[in-house]
Amino acid sequence: MANTSIILRVELNHEKATFGDVAAAISKSGGDITSIDVIRPGKDFSVRDITVEVVDTEESKVVESLKQKEGIKLINVSDRTFLVHLGGKIKIQPTLPIKNRDDLSRVYTPGVAKVCTAIHENPEKAYSLTIKRNTVAVVSDGTAVLGLGDIGPYAAAPVMEGKAMLFKQLADVDAFPICLDTHDTEELIRTIKAMSPIFGGINLEDISSPRCFEIERRLTEELEIPVFHDDQHGTAVVVIAGLLNALKVVNKRIENIRVVVNGVGAAGVSICKMLLSAGVTKLVPVDRDGAIVRGGSYSHPMWQWLADQPQVEATEGSLKEVIKGADVFIGVSRGNLLNGEDIRGMGPDPIVFAMANPVPEVSPEEAIPHARVYATGRSDYPNQINNVLVFPGLFRGALDCRARCINEPMKLAAARAIASVVTGGELNELYIIPSIFNEQVVIEVRKAVVQAAILTGVARRIPKDFR
Amino acid sequence: MANTSIILRVELNHEKATFGDVAAAISKSGGDITSIDVIRPGKDFSVRDITVEVVDTEESKVVESLKQKEGIKLINVSDRTFLVHLGGKIKIQPTLPIKNRDDLSRVYTPGVAKVCTAIHENPEKAYSLTIKRNTVAVVSDGTAVLGLGDIGPYAAAPVMEGKAMLFKQLADVDAFPICLDTHDTEELIRTIKAMSPIFGGINLEDISSPRCFEIERRLTEELEIPVFHDDQHGTAVVVIAGLLNALKVVNKRIENIRVVVNGVGAAGVSICKMLLSAGVTKLVPVDRDGAIVRGGSYSHPMWQWLADQPQVEATEGSLKEVIKGADVFIGVSRGNLLNGEDIRGMGPDPIVFAMANPVPEVSPEEAIPHARVYATGRSDYPNQINNVLVFPGLFRGALDCRARCINEPMKLAAARAIASVVTGGELNELYIIPSIFNEQVVIEVRKAVVQAAILTGVARRIPKDFR
Repeated sequence: MANTSIILRVELNHEKATFGDVAAAISKSGGDITSIDVIRPGKDFSVRDITVEVVDTEESKVVESLKQKEGIKLINVSDRTFLVHLGGKIKIQPTLPIKNRDDLSRVYTPGVAKVCTAIHENPEKAYSLTIKRNTVAVVSDGTAVLGLGDIGPYAAAPVMEGKAMLFKQLADVDAFPICLDTHDTEELIRTIKAMSPIFGGINLEDISSPRCFEIERRLTEELEIPVFHDDQHGTAVVVIAGLLNALKVVNKRIENIRVVVNGVGAAGVSICKMLLSAGVTKLVPVDRDGAIVRGGSYSHPMWQWLADQPQVEATEGSLKEVIKGADVFIGVSRGNLLNGEDIRGMGPDPIVFAMANPVPEVSPEEAIPHARVYATGRSDYPNQINNVLVFPGLFRGALDCRARCINEPMKLAAARAIASVVTGGELNELYIIPSIFNEQVVIEVRKAVVQAAILTGVARRIPKDFR
Repeated sequence: MANTSIILRVELNHEKATFGDVAAAISKSGGDITSIDVIRPGKDFSVRDITVEVVDTEESKVVESLKQKEGIKLINVSDRTFLVHLGGKIKIQPTLPIKNRDDLSRVYTPGVAKVCTAIHENPEKAYSLTIKRNTVAVVSDGTAVLGLGDIGPYAAAPVMEGKAMLFKQLADVDAFPICLDTHDTEELIRTIKAMSPIFGGINLEDISSPRCFEIERRLTEELEIPVFHDDQHGTAVVVIAGLLNALKVVNKRIENIRVVVNGVGAAGVSICKMLLSAGVTKLVPVDRDGAIVRGGSYSHPMWQWLADQPQVEATEGSLKEVIKGADVFIGVSRGNLLNGEDIRGMGPDPIVFAMANPVPEVSPEEAIPHARVYATGRSDYPNQINNVLVFPGLFRGALDCRARCINEPMKLAAARAIASVVTGGELNELYIIPSIFNEQVVIEVRKAVVQAAILTGVARRIPKDFR
């Protein structure tokens, strides 16, 4: 469970209570005091800010424990998580100060007119003379935010801003959050196309399935800048990265393994596609009604596509049936679908990626005794499958070579690059994927993505270090 | 005429030419050498960067003068104006670094989920927990950029970025440029509405007339955040500011003056409206076909609105006819429409605002002998009517009080605030308007705008310094 920090502002009536009473109440209800600031000292009354570490779910217990005590007045509760979001998490920074009229005439009128004219005469110059070459839109309609569902464009903003922070810190990409107040597929496509000129790339985020497939496909076809739906492909890339390393640990070849993918939504479809690109020959996609089988008929176009692939198995069955004997389980679905028995029934040295959030498809307690490699989406277990490993370096590469799109070979190259950061000597069951703070990740992903873009002919510029 | 700086990279063949030859050629063709950097020294050949100040129109003469000389090879010409635009003029800056997993869990998943939930439960919290409260979109479709006309969304970007720089430096407003790839009025309205959730205000820019009227009106009606078309109202606000001070110089009251406004486009309409709000009782709007008269019939809805106002004069006539005896001429039209005789024919102590760019409606040489106060849009004469005086403080005020809109009283308050920065002791014919670098301007405009918003009931928050 995740911890949180809360700050309690408390007024003490010294006749009726001591600070010891406060501390005891907090400790008893599960809080851990980490610091105390006296805000207003006094003989009869005093006010203090008490910072308390507490397990997320226990927060209200701590607050309640203080409300009941005589002589203690709880003035305010602030949450350190909320404090870092106050006023938003990104700012605009000019590249240079305008010190005088001369500066002004260069960055603004009248001097700017000749810069505008140069771009008008040759639109490619937008890449050298505007922010386009380093700027990505992080676009959401707020319909599938984290595990919260359709919370709308206003409530989605903190995630998009957080993503913009990560883009900047990890890969020096300038990303700006755009939250769209419409659910209509055609209007989303029109709006994103209309606002695209200032951006060098579009990162789609938290858009619900199946609309996300059509939106990404159309934008990729109709725009000349890379469009990437992170929930689909970011997850897929890092899953493949983890899988490549897990296969080294168990000494199996990707051509020989049988893989069950549970949950065929946004991420699941992209994972299946990438598994096929990476060479998997025995694939079992599973959704709520059981396995999607070769030769079957499905109304969902992506499921139908899977049913048409020769590598997809033809045998029907529930998840618990088809997982028997499998080498790899990849879950992007719901919590607690499987138990230890199911993992024990897999083939030798099972690899289990249980990425449902916050509760994995199979708990570590059930899985670890039987799985050789176990990975989740959570940071409190080893092997976190986190797509923060992907998008910064991927867009850094795509922008640097002015890629027209982000194609399958570029994604596969990114996955291999992430896997390569964990060296042979380091690799083991508990360390198949690098940390997002490993600076080598962005460097390697960028390099691999640029190479793949050049090889597949979608790069419009060869970066200096590739010439 | 504006000066520009160019940097000439020159290779010298020492057998055939000396640096003296280069310097002589540059000076002879009108350039002024301000610095020299030796890039590659050598016995037979050397390469230097020579920075040259040159009048805008003479740039090509200097370049040509070097091309003709034997022993001098011109490798490259860069323009310092272009250099400051390289890579764009703004960046994204995170408000804090993500140093470890604990930071990450607060700004991004899983901690961000409760911030999203808080906004979902109460959308007003978007103002405290996201960038909304300090962020403005600078939106253009590129149809009326500077004097360049319809150059499209890519070429418009350098102006919008420049504006974002000014917003930040002058008023600490985070502005982001959005350049829209559509000309359709309805689609512009739909797109701007759809992308509005992340923004606290919309600054429309360089959108051609008459579409700009409908777009601004509809957005103001349909959105709950301020929408402001700077080309209309920014110009109008600063014209009224200058006029208020000019009237003090000539000791006339606004109720008594007769004002001719030439050019009834985006800016002209807004100027006429503000003149009426400010108390003008004798107004003569003039367009290409002559005066718009009270009681006339016009197809343009804005002209018809003017023809319905009791303060608009009923006498027909050309510009040269109606300007006779006027107290004030305000031109937002084309260059060289009037001469000294026309100004001499105005009433006593004429006030002339000739703001056509780059050539004013009447040149300073013709006007100054006869006008008591003369102002233009240019920085190389006194009294520059520049809307950079308006938008930073206006949006600072509107954001700080979370104004629902920017109404006529707020604009008029901004105009009076700008005028007030020039004190009685300083005020004279050559100084009716403060410099854009005068730090008092944003402070006073903000204060006046917040007061007017509170008084007119459009403020949703009372800033601390107004409580």
